[in-house]
Amino acid sequence: MKSKTFKPPIRTLMGPGPSDVSQRVLNAMAKNTIGHLDPSFVSMMDDTKNLLRYAFKTKNELTFAVSAPGSAGMECCFVNLVEPGDKVIICQNGYFGDRMKENVERCGGIAVIVNDDWGTKIDIAKAEKALKENPDACILAFVHAETSTGVKSDPKELVDLAHKHDCLTICDTVTGLAGIPLKVDEWNIDAVYSGTQKCLSAAPGLSPITFNKACEEKIKNRKEKVQSWFLDLNLIMSYWDGDGARAYHHTAPINNLYGLHEALVILAEEGLENSWERHYKNHTILRDGLAKIGIDFLVKEEDRLPQLNTIVIPDGVNDVNARKKLLKDFNLEIGAGLGTLAGKVWRIGLMGESSNEKNINHCIESIKSII
Amino acid sequence: MKSKTFKPPIRTLMGPGPSDVSQRVLNAMAKNTIGHLDPSFVSMMDDTKNLLRYAFKTKNELTFAVSAPGSAGMECCFVNLVEPGDKVIICQNGYFGDRMKENVERCGGIAVIVNDDWGTKIDIAKAEKALKENPDACILAFVHAETSTGVKSDPKELVDLAHKHDCLTICDTVTGLAGIPLKVDEWNIDAVYSGTQKCLSAAPGLSPITFNKACEEKIKNRKEKVQSWFLDLNLIMSYWDGDGARAYHHTAPINNLYGLHEALVILAEEGLENSWERHYKNHTILRDGLAKIGIDFLVKEEDRLPQLNTIVIPDGVNDVNARKKLLKDFNLEIGAGLGTLAGKVWRIGLMGESSNEKNINHCIESIKSII
Repeated sequence: MKSKTFKPPIRTLMGPGPSDVSQRVLNAMAKNTIGHLDPSFVSMMDDTKNLLRYAFKTKNELTFAVSAPGSAGMECCFVNLVEPGDKVIICQNGYFGDRMKENVERCGGIAVIVNDDWGTKIDIAKAEKALKENPDACILAFVHAETSTGVKSDPKELVDLAHKHDCLTICDTVTGLAGIPLKVDEWNIDAVYSGTQKCLSAAPGLSPITFNKACEEKIKNRKEKVQSWFLDLNLIMSYWDGDGARAYHHTAPINNLYGLHEALVILAEEGLENSWERHYKNHTILRDGLAKIGIDFLVKEEDRLPQLNTIVIPDGVNDVNARKKLLKDFNLEIGAGLGTLAGKVWRIGLMGESSNEKNINHCIESIKSII
Repeated sequence: MKSKTFKPPIRTLMGPGPSDVSQRVLNAMAKNTIGHLDPSFVSMMDDTKNLLRYAFKTKNELTFAVSAPGSAGMECCFVNLVEPGDKVIICQNGYFGDRMKENVERCGGIAVIVNDDWGTKIDIAKAEKALKENPDACILAFVHAETSTGVKSDPKELVDLAHKHDCLTICDTVTGLAGIPLKVDEWNIDAVYSGTQKCLSAAPGLSPITFNKACEEKIKNRKEKVQSWFLDLNLIMSYWDGDGARAYHHTAPINNLYGLHEALVILAEEGLENSWERHYKNHTILRDGLAKIGIDFLVKEEDRLPQLNTIVIPDGVNDVNARKKLLKDFNLEIGAGLGTLAGKVWRIGLMGESSNEKNINHCIESIKSII
């Protein structure tokens, strides 16, 4: 073997994630590894739970980070809450709604899809119609911040509606957390999952998650065991629980958790509401700059995610070649379109550490020079 | 929120994992994060696959790291290879055999347990009897290096036997990889999973895994979809495949993979066989040192894992208090007994970076002073 130490090139990360990770978070990850049952590590886990509650705006006891990326966080919600035969209504307005359907079906559940066009927010009237037509549905699932299209939907409206029809709610806010308002308790969302590599600007690999008492009840009253041992909340609960003896479940990703903890400390220092405001303000700066070079947004103004800007590729510009050039000549990563939007749009992330004026200027100047 | 940057205490990690992580690996994890679809990252992933093939002694195409800890690696093997109704024979001689049973049953499979006493190796005659009594079994699963007891079993014998009875084999070598001889191709093991935080001395959070063609065939011919979306090898294969377009599956834990890559580069520099030899030699030094202070091993000499030494707690010594004192006064972490061995044994890890004479001396002197 002739492999050598890997030296990553220095990039500016303005795609759909990961976002730029700060030196503070990188330094945290490089701290000496200690045992996952070390009292000192356990107290850091407890502090991480509190910081996550702050970020989610919740008092939910069951709030922690799944030891795997956001897609495992999604799966954690579905395998624990969906039992064979359960009917789940999925509001689908992008790529990640499709993945929810896959999850429901692999749990033996029945997925009822409510379709909205990619690039539009979830239509509350359609969701209501589906709830009325499916009185046996027990869960409504939706994406708060669609990473594939740059659209934000309205959790509060959807949750109120679902609860009127006796449904629990599962909310995907992988790209939302810390970037746009999210108020888990005030909005009564039942199960919520996110990622670390978006607006928190920690390294990828963990999935912050929170469940309210109604979810805990459903999980405790399951007829069958959760199909995933690794993601079984009954087991994970006794691992993350700081009270009493900590049951061994798996070895936590120690250094990744150091990084997430530091990213959350940084968020608390800035203040959650200030973070939301910064993400919005920087979106307007990017928007105005792109307008000057004649670039249009896919999503209408009021439904846009400030942290994920989906822009229409100008006529005559080759998608792949242009992105290659941005990466090669400007060390700038932006995101491609997914699914039906492939080749038609770019996705410019202004998430977490990446959401700053220096990046915005670099991005606009780079795009200007290649179109 | 008044949380502060976490400062882990400096420990000597001589438990069942994580082991000490070298400064080189920590530095690698602190390198700037880049995108998971960045060509530069993709080539590092390809190099990681090659390095893992080196460590596993295999040419298997399907060799990579699951983006989650070893327990997810275990689950990845079972959910992909076990279909509902499949009968799986599990040789159980410790805690992790029990977890295999959980996995099989959660996949809708039928687990046939072959029990051996904790602290003994797997009895090949018992395994043969079970295979004869269950001609409809299609998989034999076993633990190469039982982390709960410090026992090594013989994969070659077990695999030869299983193949005679038309069974595929799943081998847990979470604690084995790089610490004791493992020859995946020469021994014809079908599916093998490991962890990063043992003899590789990378941070926890990833699970190296390898599957041969027979497994690929079984997975491709499944009647039902894999129940886990996150661990579905059909999807992961197209993500880790370096040829052609890389399909988006999930966001890889970038910085953890930097760390694993560096740990594998270090292993290649040392040489795999030299690493096996170092682990063995250091075990004999520890063994001789402990003998001088009258401490016995649980496992008989020829079945011991050199990297995980299970010793009998001396009479009159309080398990919990003694380990607390080791941690508090000597910053030394050793492992408790699990399951039926709780309170009766300690587990002293000499894994990866932790396997060195300085640690051994520190460990013996510390134990001497508290008993």
